[in-house]
Parts: sequence; structure tokens; C-alpha cells
Amino acid sequence: MEKNFSYTSLYNFTYNIFKHIGCNNSDATTATKTLLAADLRGIDSHGVARLSGYVRLWQAKRINSNPNIKIIHETISTATVDGDAGLGLVVAPHAIQIAIKKAEHAGTGWVSVCNSNHFGIAGYHAMMALEKDMIGIAMTNASALVAPTFSIERMLGTNPIAVAIPADKQPAFVADFATTTAANGKLEILQRKKEDAPLGWVQDKNGNASTNANELKQGGALLPLGSDKEHGSHKGYALGSIVDIFSAVFSGASYGPWAPPFPAYVPIPENMPGKGLGHFFGAMRIDAFRPADDFKKHIDNWIERFRRAKPAAGYDKVLIPGDPEREMEEIRIKEGIPVVESVVEELKTLAKQFNIETEF
Amino acid sequence: MEKNFSYTSLYNFTYNIFKHIGCNNSDATTATKTLLAADLRGIDSHGVARLSGYVRLWQAKRINSNPNIKIIHETISTATVDGDAGLGLVVAPHAIQIAIKKAEHAGTGWVSVCNSNHFGIAGYHAMMALEKDMIGIAMTNASALVAPTFSIERMLGTNPIAVAIPADKQPAFVADFATTTAANGKLEILQRKKEDAPLGWVQDKNGNASTNANELKQGGALLPLGSDKEHGSHKGYALGSIVDIFSAVFSGASYGPWAPPFPAYVPIPENMPGKGLGHFFGAMRIDAFRPADDFKKHIDNWIERFRRAKPAAGYDKVLIPGDPEREMEEIRIKEGIPVVESVVEELKTLAKQFNIETEF
Repeated sequence: MEKNFSYTSLYNFTYNIFKHIGCNNSDATTATKTLLAADLRGIDSHGVARLSGYVRLWQAKRINSNPNIKIIHETISTATVDGDAGLGLVVAPHAIQIAIKKAEHAGTGWVSVCNSNHFGIAGYHAMMALEKDMIGIAMTNASALVAPTFSIERMLGTNPIAVAIPADKQPAFVADFATTTAANGKLEILQRKKEDAPLGWVQDKNGNASTNANELKQGGALLPLGSDKEHGSHKGYALGSIVDIFSAVFSGASYGPWAPPFPAYVPIPENMPGKGLGHFFGAMRIDAFRPADDFKKHIDNWIERFRRAKPAAGYDKVLIPGDPEREMEEIRIKEGIPVVESVVEELKTLAKQFNIETEF
Repeated sequence: MEKNFSYTSLYNFTYNIFKHIGCNNSDATTATKTLLAADLRGIDSHGVARLSGYVRLWQAKRINSNPNIKIIHETISTATVDGDAGLGLVVAPHAIQIAIKKAEHAGTGWVSVCNSNHFGIAGYHAMMALEKDMIGIAMTNASALVAPTFSIERMLGTNPIAVAIPADKQPAFVADFATTTAANGKLEILQRKKEDAPLGWVQDKNGNASTNANELKQGGALLPLGSDKEHGSHKGYALGSIVDIFSAVFSGASYGPWAPPFPAYVPIPENMPGKGLGHFFGAMRIDAFRPADDFKKHIDNWIERFRRAKPAAGYDKVLIPGDPEREMEEIRIKEGIPVVESVVEELKTLAKQFNIETEF
């Protein structure tokens, strides 16, 4: 059911596709690295599995492959960026670099982005700050799949938050998570396997708890982190809302139920209150708060102490955010990236469409 | 089982107590307003119910009622503050003002605080930014009650996050929540009523799911938001960790399992890696991203749209973060604040201890 590809072979193919839709060399490189970071880190729903989706958005003229990304508002520590409908995979790396630049001068930098679209995995952008001894933060809004607590209407996207924190000898702390109980990608995996979802992931169109992994196709909704009020879903709803507001209301993007959809066949919402999807990025110099060596020594100590936390019966060890993805990346860069058959078929179709020779 | 007090009568009493432990007029005013904001907003666990706890910390010489709060490190948009073991109720309002000041100049301001202790409710501090047309952010670490996913060891506090966002005609969006499924205060209410907790709030000392509201007294732990891995507890664990690191590793406070306890009879952890509890504050000028009027018009639109989201069967309406607390404040400022009998007894004891005449 899966075929294995080397990183290099997926890289060359993906780069070729981005070139064919009109990206210049530099943007095609950026987009390819960003997209494939998802496959390397094991977040298969956000990698090459989405390549044909991006192409369809370009065909529908919802993506501009040659954008003029520009700052439209700024202060010493902030900027608002218009992505000019560019690939989120290109706009986001551009924007986090502006945040890093601001932080070099002001201690921290904060960038809100409008007129963009899906940017791949949030964690990849946040991690850009690490090499500068900065904490990186990345978030994005997304099309509405999530019902607020007490509601049956889809009002928010899965709106992820990523925070990357540099360490010294330890690998960096990298949290990257949807503000829902389960990301939509996990539901898609169950759909493919024809399996049920655990209670607490989705509700049906009437707001009843459901285990049907196809509930979203029947008017149901994903649930905010916490699942129900008794288990704190109002907190997940608040978190998703904060991501929406920082990403889209700060910047002038479209927010809440008006966020534009990823599938090109889904019509854009009417009366959008802003332009495209929104993102929000932050970069904080660790030496803006205390000497960098001190900070990193204590983060090492923090990580080592948490690794030593007593595991519960049946578990080997306590994980640090980022551990599973980093371990996956180490494996996949060596052993290749498994791609499910349906995605391989999509890639073959793309190859034909653009007359690209492949080994697939 | 409860006695009703006017805000003014609780205010005068509390102010008197803070004066008696050595606060100057200005600090006593700040501490009283901060503490009672919890009672007004319905977060009874964090208000006068804790007054005798603060006094006991002062008696144990863990609180300095006359602190020299100072900036020990800064950049254009950041500062690190040493609270000099002052009341968190005084240190925190001081620190958020520094963040606001930084934001006035740089667009945003970010302050990490060490050598502090419990600061009341996070939401109160975040809301200080609203009157300046800024978004306010407040978080704090706290003594360890929470086990990370896959662990049976208490490593993190309930580490709350508050974000306050200004609107125009609508009341502000104010999220304020512990990064656990349920705050410890909710568990204490069940203990008093001798009721069980829902599954998903706590685990026993072996890591098993439990409904025993007294589980923490028997070696158990609170659970991160999400309750278990299948429902995203690794996300709650990551959030609590980020709060711990921003509040305590940035600033040089004590972190993770070494965070100092609130009850004065609990010994301070050995080999603390920093000083006292830590907090983290942020202030972001909304006009650092787009014109303030634009921003507020769209936040009104955001709030109005979410209020109109279709409610699930059995619910009247969808709430905006901050609605319940604001409504409670409107009621309590008029009708008074109910205080449970055990807390009234503690206040009477304090009155005797300091020879204060009261109406209690």
C-alpha cells in the first residue's frame, strides 16, 4: 500500500513541479524544503500528499507563483506582511525572517501575515529561529472545521501553534500541535483504514458525540482540544480563537468561518472580511532576557529532568515535545519516505500533466 | 454555608491585612485590587480564600512585603524583572506596566519575572493592557501538581495563560485558563462537597484514571489539558511546559518540579535552580499591526459572528472567552461576594491575629 522514496527523489520531483507552476529557483527551493519538512518529520498529511492540492489552487488562480511579498505596516518590533496570494510555503519563511531581523535589533520580532494560504507545518517555520539562538513561534488560521464549545457550527480551523526553544547539548524543544483534540490528518488516516475514531475527536451535525471518522462529510465538526466542556474544550476553543485573531485580525486576512478553504473545488466564502489565510510569527532572542549560555544550560537541565520523570506503567519514558518528529526525521533521511499509493497516483498524474519524467 | 460580603467590606479588610504585614499604601492597594479581582470574577479559589496563605508565607519569611522590584536585564522590547520575593499580587502589576511601556515605544513589550510568588488571576494582569488599546498576555508557573503525558511524577504547575484582546463596542475577549483539564480550584470544590471528579481530571499515583477528588493527597496528579494521549494531553503538557520556560527559564526563577509551593508548611524544594516563582507578560499595541479602529471593528465583527454561531441542542448560545467572568463581576459588584464558611473562619482568625475590628 506504500512506496518508499528517497528524500532526494521527492525533492527533485517537487522542485520540478514548483518550477513548472512558475516559481523562480529560489522560491521553488524554499517551497520544496518547507513542504517536505512535513514528510521528513512524519506529518504525512501536510507534505507531498498536498502537492497536487497546491497545484489545483494555482490552476484556480488562487495561488500566485510569483508574488510580491511586502511589508504593509511596521514598528520597531512588529510588521504586517501582505503575501500577495503567494504559496504559504514561500510567504511563511519570508515572514519569519522578518521577525528574526526585527528581533536582532529590538530583542523580539512579531509578524502577522495576510493574503497567504497553507504554509505546511508550523514547526518548520518556528525552528528557523533556533540557529539564531532565538525562540521561534508560528501559527496559522485555516478553513473552518471546528465547532466552538456549545455549538454545532464550524467556526475555526485546526489552527496550529508551534514553539521552538533552543537548548545547548540537548536537542531543541519543538512543540507543534493543532488546537483541536486531534488534527484532521489523523481523521483522514482512520477514513482510509475504515476505522472508528475515539470518542471526543468529532461530533455529529447535531452536536452529539460520535466515533464516525467520516462525520465531517455529514455536517459534523472537529472538537477543540479538551473535547467537551467538562474536559476543558472551552480552553481549546479559546486557543484556536487566539490563533485566528493573531493570524488574521491583526493582519487583515479572512478569519473564523470565512477563512478560505484548501480544496480548490470548494468555493471561497462570500463576503470575506479580509484577504486570504493569515499567519503569525514570533522570534525572541534568548539573550534579550538573560545571557544565552545561562538560558541554554537551564533548558538542558529542564529537558534532562523531564526525561527522567518517572514513567507510568507500560511506558518506557517521558517524551520532550519534538522527540518523535526528530527521531522520524533521522530515520527517513536515511531510509526514505513511505508514500501511500493514492498519493503516488496523484504524483504520477502531476508528472503527466507537466510532462516530467519520473522513476515513479 | 456561605456568607455574603460587599466588595467594599472585603476590600477594606484585605487592605488592612496587607498594611499590617508591612506593605506601603500603594502596594496594599495594588495587592488588594489584584486579589479581589478573582472574587469579583467568580474565581473564588484565587481570591480572599488565599489571603491567610499569603500571610503565612510572609510569616515564614518567604514573602517580602517591602520589595525592591527591579529590571535586571533589558532590550528595546524586553525586560527581565527581579521581584525581590515581593507579593506576586504587587510584582505582576508592576511588570505588566513595564511591558506596556516597552510596547508604547517598540510596538510590543515582553517581561519575564523571577523571584516572585502567586500573582492571583492571570486574566487581571492581561486586562491591564486593554485600556491602552493593547493585547495583554500573562502567564505564570506554579508548584508541581501535573504529570506529563506517560508519567506519574508531578512536574508542572497548573500554569495558566491569559490573553486579553480589546474590542470596540463589544466587551473585550478575555481568555484565562489553566493548562490542565481542570484547575485545582475545581477539585477543591468537589473535595468540600465530597463529590467525585469526572474521569480525565486526575490520575492516581500509579497513573490510572481516577474519579477520586482527593487523589492529589495520595500521590496522584492533575492531568494536562487533553486528559490522555488519545485526547491530546501531550498538547496540554507542551503548553504547560512553554509557560514554565517563558516564566521561569527566561527569568531565572525556579522551574518544573522545583517551583516553590504556595502552602507555607510545605518545605521549599532542595537545590532550586532559580529564584522563586516566575511570570511572563506581553503587551502588543494593536496599531503596531494595523490601524486601531480597523482592528477593533473586525474584532467586534469576529465576536458578533461567534455569538451567532448555531448552538447545540440544550444550549442557549455560544460564549466568548471572558463572558462568564464579566457577567459574574457585574452581579457581584452589586449584590456582594459569597464567601464559604471555612474561609470566613480564616478571615476571623486573621482579624484576631492583627487586632482588626470587623463586621464578620
